[in-house]
Amino acid sequence: MRMYDLIMKKKHGEALTDEEIHYLVNGYTKGNIPDYQMSAFLMAVCFQGMNEAETLSLTMAMAKSGEMLDLSAIHGMKADKHSTGGVGDKTSLILGPMVASLGVPVAKMSGRGLGHTGGTIDKLESFPGFSVSISNEKFIHNVNRMKLAIIGQTADLAPADKMLYALRDVTATVDQLSLIASSIMSKKLAAGSDVIVLDVKAGSGAFMKTCEDARKLAETMVKIGNGAGRKTYAVISDMNQPLGTAVGNILEVKEAIEALNGKAPEDLNDACITLASYMLLGAGRVENISEAKELLADTIRSGKALHKLAEFVEAQGGDKRFVYEPDRFPKARLTATLKAQTDGYISAMNTEEIGLTSLALGGGRETKESEIDLTVGIVFEKKIGAKVKVGDPIAVLHGNEEGKLSAAVSKLQNAISIGQTPITPVPHILGVVEQS
Amino acid sequence: MRMYDLIMKKKHGEALTDEEIHYLVNGYTKGNIPDYQMSAFLMAVCFQGMNEAETLSLTMAMAKSGEMLDLSAIHGMKADKHSTGGVGDKTSLILGPMVASLGVPVAKMSGRGLGHTGGTIDKLESFPGFSVSISNEKFIHNVNRMKLAIIGQTADLAPADKMLYALRDVTATVDQLSLIASSIMSKKLAAGSDVIVLDVKAGSGAFMKTCEDARKLAETMVKIGNGAGRKTYAVISDMNQPLGTAVGNILEVKEAIEALNGKAPEDLNDACITLASYMLLGAGRVENISEAKELLADTIRSGKALHKLAEFVEAQGGDKRFVYEPDRFPKARLTATLKAQTDGYISAMNTEEIGLTSLALGGGRETKESEIDLTVGIVFEKKIGAKVKVGDPIAVLHGNEEGKLSAAVSKLQNAISIGQTPITPVPHILGVVEQS
Repeated sequence: MRMYDLIMKKKHGEALTDEEIHYLVNGYTKGNIPDYQMSAFLMAVCFQGMNEAETLSLTMAMAKSGEMLDLSAIHGMKADKHSTGGVGDKTSLILGPMVASLGVPVAKMSGRGLGHTGGTIDKLESFPGFSVSISNEKFIHNVNRMKLAIIGQTADLAPADKMLYALRDVTATVDQLSLIASSIMSKKLAAGSDVIVLDVKAGSGAFMKTCEDARKLAETMVKIGNGAGRKTYAVISDMNQPLGTAVGNILEVKEAIEALNGKAPEDLNDACITLASYMLLGAGRVENISEAKELLADTIRSGKALHKLAEFVEAQGGDKRFVYEPDRFPKARLTATLKAQTDGYISAMNTEEIGLTSLALGGGRETKESEIDLTVGIVFEKKIGAKVKVGDPIAVLHGNEEGKLSAAVSKLQNAISIGQTPITPVPHILGVVEQS
Repeated sequence: MRMYDLIMKKKHGEALTDEEIHYLVNGYTKGNIPDYQMSAFLMAVCFQGMNEAETLSLTMAMAKSGEMLDLSAIHGMKADKHSTGGVGDKTSLILGPMVASLGVPVAKMSGRGLGHTGGTIDKLESFPGFSVSISNEKFIHNVNRMKLAIIGQTADLAPADKMLYALRDVTATVDQLSLIASSIMSKKLAAGSDVIVLDVKAGSGAFMKTCEDARKLAETMVKIGNGAGRKTYAVISDMNQPLGTAVGNILEVKEAIEALNGKAPEDLNDACITLASYMLLGAGRVENISEAKELLADTIRSGKALHKLAEFVEAQGGDKRFVYEPDRFPKARLTATLKAQTDGYISAMNTEEIGLTSLALGGGRETKESEIDLTVGIVFEKKIGAKVKVGDPIAVLHGNEEGKLSAAVSKLQNAISIGQTPITPVPHILGVVEQS
């Protein structure tokens, strides 16, 4: 087999065999296929696409390029949730305890936030003492004991994906559906859960800007997941505004605790209930979604989910008093309020810009090594559709440096549009994709 | 300017500016743009193409990437002919002296043969003592004195093309019209002639297999040449059989000498007269093609062209007696005759295979360093359309090794088809492309 012939084949629009795709991925990972041949191939894929079988082969080849996590020591069907990345997305902190409190194991390997979206680990580290640096043994033990644990991404999961992504990133070959889907799914498959619920975001704060593109990506990933023998669902959700009201690590943790106390904003509640329902369904814990929704609502009402969060935080070294007394969390030294400059209705929020504003306050890392300020962020008083009058507060910004704070206020103001016509916001959940 | 953005632009089907294309070619030549970005760009070009202006910019950028030959010390309009590569093509040896004998300077920089087609330098070196390793000064002096000189490709002409071609060759991005045309033309522009006549071959022995593809390439190159301020014409000629009767270095030189004695086969005569006519027309030596043809025919009848060849050979150290007494050339030790195995009409000749047969006899080089045997080759007694009976000789193969010779006979037999229906061969000249 020669890489040249595989490039030519794809260039001519032909489908590659499973064997050919494994040759290509393994050859590249081992350094036998040079970057310049792989980038030519990837560009050909951008034009000719890959069919379902090829996409599954590519995903499997990348998943198998490194360690495949063995979660077989964990009893029961393990459920995982993965978001394509959003602003203000604290759902993992809420639905993890909800699902676990219903007896379904959630064994999560998670990365840190990079770019304009936050990471679950950063949020959890807001609890003093909390650590994701636990041994595999403790991780498995904890999940078996209390159904919930989280570990940092220490394992060498899907190294081929890492290499290919780095190459795509510099050769303008990122935006191809099969390549995006296989990149996400290779890591999920390697991470070992039996049930995978994907939260595919659509809108100004997401990689996929339109609902249509998000749906295509969702469909492709659901096919891959099921093709690989995992129960896979995808929820398509709106990211034309931040999820919930808080953006920023501690501010989001506090909102998550509020949610577990039954005081979630509607969009955040919808997101958690929907995603968690499919985790329960996939794991066989319920017969249908309405049964799931009832059980999940009860985990809030009864306080079970809140207690599960506390138990989980404590098990990984964190101070569980913060769960019950969130005022213990440190606060940023300064706040500033963004006020409406005109009467009207909030018509649009540039959500990526909002994420970047929080980052500029010190709340996100620009490189993997950056230290982040967990206290800073933004809390919204108004979201899309809200009627405002001049001077009404739209959002409160939390910061520790005057200069950064005032710059952030201007930045945030530019990210929010006020129109003159009343507007009804779209529902947060735009659709669900199951195996057809 | 970032290479990433240029890849993205081309991927989206947009045209690059002249500045962008120069940035790209210069950056790549200097090593600032890595292979993997360039190959992704080239693959995008294969799908999206390049418009006329982009193709001209690319050609100019590559031409200017190294030395641009300065032929200004040569008086008059310098005319050059370039073939896209054919089997049995000895036209340079014939039309060079014809055109020069009419006072139009031919200052040729030539490469060696590689692959299944022969090179002019190899043929000229059949004359004992002949050398193309002459100084630039002597080269220019000779052209001024007698209108004809040839120099080996010593200068660093269009190094960007060399680098890009090497990359295209391993990334399945060779077969794109603008890339092919700019590769050929960049070297021609760097080589400095004012008039460029292109011989674009079409058929089984050529890079372009169909007349239609050859015409598109011809049109693209003519636009580039004229866009760069050179008078450029392209002749499209048939390469579904070898040109003339001889294939192999000394055998072709002898056929060229025959042609200069007025005894050229019709196709070879047509090729030389047509190509040379456009050289004269471009150089302003004649008003029209029919005037050119008359003058050219006279250079043969009068013996002027033959004497010009002798003068030229002598001026570059060669023994001119061989021009007048071609029996002096060494001969291969062995011959074998390919005979018809069936009655019928010669219906097709796989010309690339014929070229490879000559190469297998020792007549071509497989790598740049190979030594070649100038005596070996093939002389055809019959070409397409000829009626044959069982046992009729079709070709005589000349070789120096029994094993190679018998293998070559089988190889040649497979390259020649005999059908049962009479067939009329296409004319050798399929068309001419001038600036519209």
